[in-house]
Amino acid sequence: MQYNVEVRTSLKKGMLNPEASTIEKALALLNFEVENTKTINIIQFSLNAENKEEALAQVDEMCQKLLCNPVIHDYEINISEE
Amino acid sequence: MQYNVEVRTSLKKGMLNPEASTIEKALALLNFEVENTKTINIIQFSLNAENKEEALAQVDEMCQKLLCNPVIHDYEINISEE
Repeated sequence: MQYNVEVRTSLKKGMLNPEASTIEKALALLNFEVENTKTINIIQFSLNAENKEEALAQVDEMCQKLLCNPVIHDYEINISEE
Repeated sequence: MQYNVEVRTSLKKGMLNPEASTIEKALALLNFEVENTKTINIIQFSLNAENKEEALAQVDEMCQKLLCNPVIHDYEINISEE
């Protein structure tokens, strides 16, 4: 069975986000005032697995081992059938 | 009026995505086989504007000037009231 996977990674609350603060400052230089800037990264891919549970277990392992840094990132996994 | 804005940036079709291919290769080294890897960046912020149309116009200008490179990126703007 082929599954579409989306992994959404964001920094945990309280972590400094230099990318977001740079965006906010650069927008301010262009006279745009914005607040509470956050950045989120999404990785999408397709994956073969026996069933949804197996797919979820595999993707969770990928997140722990490579896609995210569990110390600083929160992640969310969405899996749908192709 | 305060609006919540989300800008979703992805590379246009046909553009090489070295980040995605690196992820795919690194996952393969860990014995995970995935395909069609894509990456998407999301920037979220809040913004003051008179109405939704003005907010959209402002955010579109931000995208053109700073947040995206319209030559290589597709972008999608979502605006909701706070």
